[in-house]
Parts: sequence; structure tokens; C-alpha cells
Amino acid sequence: MFNPEMETLPREEIEKLQLQRLRKTLLYLKNSQSFLKEKYKHINPEDIKSLSDLKYIPFTTKDELREGYPFKHIAVPIERCKRMHTSSGTTGVPVINAMTEGDINQWGEIMARCLTVAGLTSEDRLQITPSFGLFNGGFGFHYGAERLGIFIIPTGAGRSLLQLKLMKELGTTAIAAIASYPARLIEVAKESGFDFRETNLRVAILGAETWSDEYRRWIEAEMGVKTYDIIGMTETGGVGLGIDCSARSGIHIWEDHYIVEIVDPETGEPLPQGQEGELVITTLTREGLPLIRYRTRDITKIISFDPCDCGRTHVRVDRIKGRCDDMLKVKGVNFYPSQVEAILLKYKALSPYYQLVIETVKGKDEMTVIVEKVKDISQEELERLKLELYAFLGFHCNIQIVPKGTIQRVPGKAVRVHDRRKKS
Amino acid sequence: MFNPEMETLPREEIEKLQLQRLRKTLLYLKNSQSFLKEKYKHINPEDIKSLSDLKYIPFTTKDELREGYPFKHIAVPIERCKRMHTSSGTTGVPVINAMTEGDINQWGEIMARCLTVAGLTSEDRLQITPSFGLFNGGFGFHYGAERLGIFIIPTGAGRSLLQLKLMKELGTTAIAAIASYPARLIEVAKESGFDFRETNLRVAILGAETWSDEYRRWIEAEMGVKTYDIIGMTETGGVGLGIDCSARSGIHIWEDHYIVEIVDPETGEPLPQGQEGELVITTLTREGLPLIRYRTRDITKIISFDPCDCGRTHVRVDRIKGRCDDMLKVKGVNFYPSQVEAILLKYKALSPYYQLVIETVKGKDEMTVIVEKVKDISQEELERLKLELYAFLGFHCNIQIVPKGTIQRVPGKAVRVHDRRKKS
Repeated sequence: MFNPEMETLPREEIEKLQLQRLRKTLLYLKNSQSFLKEKYKHINPEDIKSLSDLKYIPFTTKDELREGYPFKHIAVPIERCKRMHTSSGTTGVPVINAMTEGDINQWGEIMARCLTVAGLTSEDRLQITPSFGLFNGGFGFHYGAERLGIFIIPTGAGRSLLQLKLMKELGTTAIAAIASYPARLIEVAKESGFDFRETNLRVAILGAETWSDEYRRWIEAEMGVKTYDIIGMTETGGVGLGIDCSARSGIHIWEDHYIVEIVDPETGEPLPQGQEGELVITTLTREGLPLIRYRTRDITKIISFDPCDCGRTHVRVDRIKGRCDDMLKVKGVNFYPSQVEAILLKYKALSPYYQLVIETVKGKDEMTVIVEKVKDISQEELERLKLELYAFLGFHCNIQIVPKGTIQRVPGKAVRVHDRRKKS
Repeated sequence: MFNPEMETLPREEIEKLQLQRLRKTLLYLKNSQSFLKEKYKHINPEDIKSLSDLKYIPFTTKDELREGYPFKHIAVPIERCKRMHTSSGTTGVPVINAMTEGDINQWGEIMARCLTVAGLTSEDRLQITPSFGLFNGGFGFHYGAERLGIFIIPTGAGRSLLQLKLMKELGTTAIAAIASYPARLIEVAKESGFDFRETNLRVAILGAETWSDEYRRWIEAEMGVKTYDIIGMTETGGVGLGIDCSARSGIHIWEDHYIVEIVDPETGEPLPQGQEGELVITTLTREGLPLIRYRTRDITKIISFDPCDCGRTHVRVDRIKGRCDDMLKVKGVNFYPSQVEAILLKYKALSPYYQLVIETVKGKDEMTVIVEKVKDISQEELERLKLELYAFLGFHCNIQIVPKGTIQRVPGKAVRVHDRRKKS
């Protein structure tokens, strides 16, 4: 462990620390220059007697942070900030997170913990393939590796053939990547006769997208690596909010730095352990952008507050199933693309490159699953797939099996849904 | 000044320090695991009695470093290295510079000095537009800004419209860029009605390419900034080897970290002050890749060893005129593309987007200068340009004036020469 004392803090101590830091964060925010402080003007931090009082404090939403653009939601003068990153901005105005030196140190600390969970030490050589720039991914891994003294191979995004060449020639032992990127590396490896078994690669730390257990097994088999699921977002301070460990029993979220809640995405009501809902994060140690009850839109559930087999005591949540915004409603049925992916990947003839196209045909929803094959699929298997999708979805969808390479490869996050329905 | 004591060290002290560090570097290299140590096996560091003995030590060339690929030329085990960057590799196998923690600190120090020369303080907001990754540019500025506590806007390469938007909305006061990039920003600004006078931008730190004084004046007028010419390369430890100051009387090279020589590119003979030749660099404080007499291929001359008006005492060299490898020989005449650029930019109707195409026509060299116009050029001016090019080159070349946007805009370094002659 990178920080054994904090990572194994008994539950009671964690909650004591959280309560104390929550009060401090609220007070800090109220006295700050953030325009969000108005939300808390009638709340006295000392009135918060226990963590269960958290539910009386209003949520913070992404739209509010967007309204702050560029810096109205930042709690300190920009002169005190040293770095910034932004959300992708694909769905509108980007959210800026401006970071103080303290924030960069906090980020380095939680990322160093995550990399240690994934088994990395100063002996490792980490190839960082998420881009370095406004996107927080590249720099997050950089700061964690810096803290641990890991040798960084800063390839950044793209140039898959060069990535493979360097992986082999420079003795890369671990890669960091956006979750869909290994599919591309595996594809290019096959095309170019590259053999992952001839490399020293043993670990892949993947995140920034929802990825199914089936996809995970496929990557691990193809690349001969152990994968780790890392989560985080620009708003909460970047990648490193949590990671799953070798025990594979949920994602540890660093509770000395964050409070975790799960709420009903419709009503906002807190949900009990085990029930699926929206992940809500309160930051306890961030200075540039402290957040109280931030609605992440990510769907998960709390697995356990008990200590994990790995010895860590922090809360474990389920791997992210999808984002509220990604949830599809087709013919009245709610589901996530990752759930369809999980079904597709049970078929060895199919690749992880797929798209869901939803259209309005004669006034009704119609969905087509377009998926690439890696080899021919038998009529029998195809029938089985149809049945299985029907059993899950409860409606019939079209299935199009297309040749390898049909679906466009894009740098960055994969685009898997094309919803062409007329919005009413 | 960032480090007043070292930056104003009297000449005598500089040379004493250099001699001592040169001996230390040689000893270090001889006892290291670098395959380059063989070159020095008959040299006893204690036999070096003065800096003028340097000329008896063999040069190091880029080809030798390439032979070391990936790590044979690195002086320490990779486990002791924390980062790496590579040369572009466009002309063959890339050179890797693997850096220890000490190297990163050295880099941060010289970059902090450079940014301070350019007038930056912790109050500034620096938009870093060179890419972050294997290329050293982005990270070099990052480490310098980190040391000074400057607010970093890490845009990286490309997306010029977004660069301008952020420049204005986030209050950017300084940008770092590859020298040809401002031309693209100015172009996009004109197309989109963007006015640099509505920004807080006041400084542009440019490097990684040869750029003429005329281009410099043009950028300064168009963007309303003061520009600084920064030099450096992957092999010597990245950007930050030197920078010119407001006095505009040459580029200061940090002599407590590097020894500067100018040699005849053909014979390797050391040249006296004022005579143009190839820049040769010896590193005095680098651990991963210490270099003795590295042939940079850059053409310049020593301007002065006297203290500058800015108070700094380190040697000043002329702005880089070109690289030996960039030198063109057409119809027996030697010249650099930047010299043609300087002539073109005297004409307000012409833009800094140009290409030199050299072909073999009927067994003879023929050169065509293709240049974009920003407005119509009169027949009279065109005749004057022809005369001026002839006066400089001593032979007639074709001139093609093409519409704006004809020449392809590429990310990264500009491609200005197309030599299509049959190699004999």
C-alpha cells in the first residue's frame, strides 16, 4: 500500500474524519469566492451532527458548474491555481477544474495509491496512452507515477503501431488507457503480427468509459495482462477517485478524500447499500473546486463498507454500469449499452466493435445492433444471439453482422450509440 | 532572475566551474554503463588542464546516439530513470533521452530561468501549445511553469479555434509554441474575426524551428506580443538550453550546465568568436544522457562572452540560422530556407506560408518558390522580389504566388522544402 495508515483506517475513524472534513469543506466554501457559496448561506457547518445529515444539503450539478464557466465556481483566485483540466465539453460548455498546488499533491497521492493497488512499483515502466492536455487522463497517471518514481513512457494518444513497437522495445510493463483502446491495440497487433507474449506487459489500468466484464476477460486473454478498473472525472479532481484491486470485489473509493452516496437518479433520495443508483461525490480535501454532493450521473451501487481481502477498509462500489445520460429507453425498456456489449461478447465470433442505431420507423422505435465479426458466425449461433438479446431487452431488434474494420476507429472515447429518433 | 547568483557569475568563475564539472562528467561517463564510455577510455579527466583542452576530446554524433537505441547510450540503469523523451525520428531511428530525477530538476531549473527571462511570474497564465508526449516541448514548459507557480493551460497541439477561444476567455497572458504555429493562429484569428487586442496576451515563447527576424516582427505586430526565441533539443535535455532576452542581443546559453563551442561543420575545427559554424554542446549536469561535444547540426556563431545589458554573464550566441542538414545547395549555391523567408516577408502582400521546390530539369537544378499571398501583389513588387531573390541566390528561380490556404497546414513542425532532385 502507498499509504497504509489511511488505506486501512477503521470504519469508525474514517467516518469521524469525514464528518470533520465535511464541516471544514463547507466552511471553506462559504468563505470562498466560488459563486456556489450562495447555496450554503443558510447552512451552519456546526449543525451537521453526523454524516446522515448530509442528505439535507443541496446537490451540485454539472449544469451549475457549467454556469460557472470559466472560473466563477473556483474557490480561490486563479493566481493561486497552478493547473487546469476540462471536461470534454462534447455535451455543451466544458467544466473547468482549476487546481492549487495542494490539489496537485492530493491527485498525486490518490493516483499513487491506485497504481500501487495495480501492483506497480518504481521498477515498472508505465506507458501512458491517454492524451496529455486539457483531458485529465494523461497527467493523472503522470502525477501518480512521479510520486512512485515509475519510469514514464509518455506516448499519449494514437499511433497504435508505434505504441506496440515501443511497448516491446522499451520493455513496458504496464499501460494506462481509455477502456476501449486495448481493442484497437489488439486489432493492430493482429494485423501486424505483433505478439503480446513477447513483451514484458503484465498490467493494464483502464478507465474513462464503461466496460463490461466480458470485454475485460477478452482483453486479459488477448493481451496476457491483468486489468484494473480506475474511475474519476475532471470535476472531482481527475482520474484516481477509485480503483478495483486483485480481489475483484468492487472499486475502492478513497474515503479520506471523498464521501460516497448513492441516490435515486429521479428523486434524489439516498439509497441503501446494495441498491443501484447515481453515484454522488463530496470532496473533502480539494481546494480549487470543492464539491458538495456532486451528481456524477454514473450508475453503480455500494457493495460493502467491510474491509476488503486486500486489507483496505474504504467503501467498495460496483464497477460503473453506465451513465444516467447513456441510459437508453427503447420501446419503453431502459438499459445501458454495456449490457448489450456483455451479451455480444459471449460470442467468440464477434468483436468489441459495435454500434446501437435507434430510429423511428412508422412512428415506432426500432433498434439495430451493428457488430463486427472476427470470424464467421454460424446460423445457429446467430439465432441464439437473437434469442438472448430478446430475453434481455424484451423486444426484437435487428442484428447486422459486418466485416472487421467497418465501424470507424476514433481516437479517445468510443461512440457506440446513434439515436436518430425524432425528439418529441 | 530566477537564479541571480548563477546567472550573473563572473566569467572567470563560470570557466572554473565548467572545467571542474567537465572533469566530473567525463569521470562519471567513464564509470557509467553507457556504451559511449569506450570513446574516453584513453582520456584521464585530470589531464584536462583548461577548457581549451576540450578540443582533444572526440565529438559525439546523433548517429552514435541512434546506435544506442533504445538505452545503450544511457548512463544509468532505467530503474533510476523517471521519464523519457525522444527526438522526432523523422530522419531515422529516434534518439531516446531517459531522465533521472536530477535531470528533471535540472530541466525545471533552466526552464524556470528561461520563463523568467521572458518576464513571466506566478501571476501569469501560460498556454502551452507544443504537444505533451514523446516530444519534449510540452513537458519542458510544464516543468518550468511548475517551478515558478505559473497557471498552466495545457492545450497541447492543434485545435486552433479552441486555442483562441481559451486564450481570450481564460485570460492567457503568455503562450509557448513551435515557431511556425503563430502563423496558423493569426490566420484562424482573421478567418474568425478574432482580435488579439481583446486578449491579455503579451508574450510568445517560440522555438523548435528556425524563424527569421522578419517573421518575428510580423508575429509581434499581428499578435501584439513580445516574442522570445528559445532553443534546446531532446539530446541535450530538451527545450531550455538557452533563450534571448529583451536586449535582443543573442541567445543566452546556461553555461553552468553546458559548454558551448562553435566548430567548422566540415572539418570539426573550433572556430573563433564571431565566425559562423556548427553549435557543439557539452552537458555538465545531466545524469541520464551526459554528452561530450555533441554535434547539434545547428548553425550559429558566438556573439559575446561579455555581460549582457540584462545583467546575465553567460555566453550569447546568434539566433539559429538553420541546421547543417537543412542547408540547401542549389546550382552550387549554399543557403538556408530561413534566408529566403526573410526576403519574402519584406513584402506585406505575402504570407509566411511558403515552400521551396527543387527539381532536376534537363539535368539541371531548378528551384520554385511557392508563396501564399494575403492580398494582391503588384507587378512592380513582383519584379522587385525577383531581383532581390536573384541578388541573394545568384541564380534565377521561379516564383509562384498562390491563394491563401493553398499550402497544407500541418500540426507540429512546418515542412518547407521539397527536394525532388534525383540523388546521384
